[in-house]
Amino acid sequence: MDKVLAVNAGSSSLKFQLLEMPHAEVLVSGIVERIGLNDGVITFKYDGKKDTEILDIPNHSVAADLVLKGLVEKNIVANLQDIVAAGHRVVHGGEYFQGSVICDEDSISKVEELADLAPLHNPANLIGYRAFKEALPNATHTFTFDTAFHQTMAQEIYMYALPYEYYTDLQVRRYGAHGVSHEYVSHRVAELMGRTNEGTNVITLHLGNGASISAVKDGKCVNTSMGFTPLAGVMMGTRTGDLDPAIVTYLMRKLDITAEEVLDIFNKKSGMAGISGLSSDARDIEAGIEAGNPRAILTRKMYAQRVLQYVGAYALQLGRVDAIVFTAGLGENDNGTREAILEVISEGMGITYDKALNDSVHGDEVKISLDDSKVDVWIVPTNEELMIATDSYEIHNV
Amino acid sequence: MDKVLAVNAGSSSLKFQLLEMPHAEVLVSGIVERIGLNDGVITFKYDGKKDTEILDIPNHSVAADLVLKGLVEKNIVANLQDIVAAGHRVVHGGEYFQGSVICDEDSISKVEELADLAPLHNPANLIGYRAFKEALPNATHTFTFDTAFHQTMAQEIYMYALPYEYYTDLQVRRYGAHGVSHEYVSHRVAELMGRTNEGTNVITLHLGNGASISAVKDGKCVNTSMGFTPLAGVMMGTRTGDLDPAIVTYLMRKLDITAEEVLDIFNKKSGMAGISGLSSDARDIEAGIEAGNPRAILTRKMYAQRVLQYVGAYALQLGRVDAIVFTAGLGENDNGTREAILEVISEGMGITYDKALNDSVHGDEVKISLDDSKVDVWIVPTNEELMIATDSYEIHNV
Repeated sequence: MDKVLAVNAGSSSLKFQLLEMPHAEVLVSGIVERIGLNDGVITFKYDGKKDTEILDIPNHSVAADLVLKGLVEKNIVANLQDIVAAGHRVVHGGEYFQGSVICDEDSISKVEELADLAPLHNPANLIGYRAFKEALPNATHTFTFDTAFHQTMAQEIYMYALPYEYYTDLQVRRYGAHGVSHEYVSHRVAELMGRTNEGTNVITLHLGNGASISAVKDGKCVNTSMGFTPLAGVMMGTRTGDLDPAIVTYLMRKLDITAEEVLDIFNKKSGMAGISGLSSDARDIEAGIEAGNPRAILTRKMYAQRVLQYVGAYALQLGRVDAIVFTAGLGENDNGTREAILEVISEGMGITYDKALNDSVHGDEVKISLDDSKVDVWIVPTNEELMIATDSYEIHNV
Repeated sequence: MDKVLAVNAGSSSLKFQLLEMPHAEVLVSGIVERIGLNDGVITFKYDGKKDTEILDIPNHSVAADLVLKGLVEKNIVANLQDIVAAGHRVVHGGEYFQGSVICDEDSISKVEELADLAPLHNPANLIGYRAFKEALPNATHTFTFDTAFHQTMAQEIYMYALPYEYYTDLQVRRYGAHGVSHEYVSHRVAELMGRTNEGTNVITLHLGNGASISAVKDGKCVNTSMGFTPLAGVMMGTRTGDLDPAIVTYLMRKLDITAEEVLDIFNKKSGMAGISGLSSDARDIEAGIEAGNPRAILTRKMYAQRVLQYVGAYALQLGRVDAIVFTAGLGENDNGTREAILEVISEGMGITYDKALNDSVHGDEVKISLDDSKVDVWIVPTNEELMIATDSYEIHNV
């Protein structure tokens, strides 16, 4: 049977999943961490087991070799030749890529060129690709882009109200993020509802440590909350989301810091962590709320309101909403955050839902709205690896 | 009869209107321009006449004296003692002022202190006040704040997702602007609909060269699009509105300019002017659209979409919308902009309207929605001077 590897490489980590295709059974998933640092860690999860080993992993090539060696040693694959394809996640596809593509000279040079827009991510994604290409030279290698799903947005949606040449010359526009996730859950919910993508309007709430919201019409993205970078949109674990940009210069002046330092605060010390003063982890916010901490309560209320603003905007843009989908860390597992959002949007959206069912769901595919709800509300765990592997396998079979 | 002066002082200009109270008849309106520059200009409009004089006006005190002297010489007032009150518009009232107040030591020192948040405006507003206080020492002088109407927003709405102490220590929060206008048109439309403020939900679109949108429930503001400064919110004549703040540092790096220079571009070279490449004037955009200019067409489409996003967000926050009101320069006079907005929001809002009537309205109080529309759509010319004078007269009579 054909096996496909889904790879998500960061600057010092490498996540992987091996799927048996075409029925997409997950054979193993795992992660290599602390690449290039002391005491690297490699973890395999398979057959209900979890193997972890600590050893020096000087670079991504060594990491890739360790992953593949592990697959054979643990009898997960009999022969590395069975791995017919490997799909590599790439954060930024700019305006070049509307879907997944084969890794060739042209696509590689474009991913390199786009490092200017994603300096922390695209180079790391390429390092991961190169390591596995070396170790699996005969497999089909493909790129899947986190921006590709959002390329269908209309120009009046993706443009910023800046001097026009900043778009044409400097590529400043809304690109969005989490595209693989938004595509997966919006298409999956149509399937779960017994509908086709065509004719179905969905608002997808990808609420993780990073968070974004998309409006999907006929299976295509028509708007998304992340912008030029993943700092934009709703408030997140440590990020501000969209802001009055004049706050940048005001803080530079008041705190006597540089613009880069202000942006660093916007990225790392703001959001839920900044407001609550507790942490970026929704579980700490929950504990704070239970203890009656007013800043924890404010954090939850702000989060719900920021989500409401996008749901309202996208509902009007779509004209009619068939389903709202919660996904990613908080969306799948944080009942309190879901409840806070549903509390503020239900009246205006005509939503009715099963509060007890919402309280009990953790990581399952569940419809929590009632039959008389004007809009279906679903929880759909995201599955980016499945999307990456499916695209890769399709390209392999062309 | 009692007369009340409404004053709006800028750094080099001074707008005024004299109203006869309590029936609020406008006796004269006018403007002093180029104060402190060569060839100052003073204009009076009254009785269908327009008098303009060019002369040196070295400072605001001279300007105030010229205004008052003109009122007597033109027989608009028999005696300056008839001017029982003067209301002064102040841009920033911070969190101190929820409504208009008498000018006393305490309120003056707070307006001075708030200059930090509105360095271009509050000092000029105070200069105007001092000039008229000197010339009309016996009148009641009051301040009316452009932020006061927005002070009823809930904390989860006005807070930014920044470190909490930037709010407590540095006063960074959403303040809003055009509050006098949003208050006037939202209350006026309830009156026109034969309703009370209580129980009425209104979305007010103040669309001028600066633009902001508010959600008003029971006569009180619950959200507004302008933020810490008037750069935030929807796109405007030359301003960007809300942005991914990471664009600031990206442009600094790519264009080798300072953060202040980037913000200057966001304020003065962006918005409709930046996208169209034509001008910030909606009439030039209209001409461009008629000539088939693709960037003019894009500008109009973007503008309508940006307004849609706020209308949708506020509609969901309000739960139910009774009326949408257009006001200010574009809102009152630009049929094309109104049409573009109505085109994108009507389906989702259940709005039906009289297209021919919309095309014909310029500056009148008109309902353009049809009887079967789920939401009333009105055009209501704003009247900030009336609000300022009414508040001032009320305080005078206490």
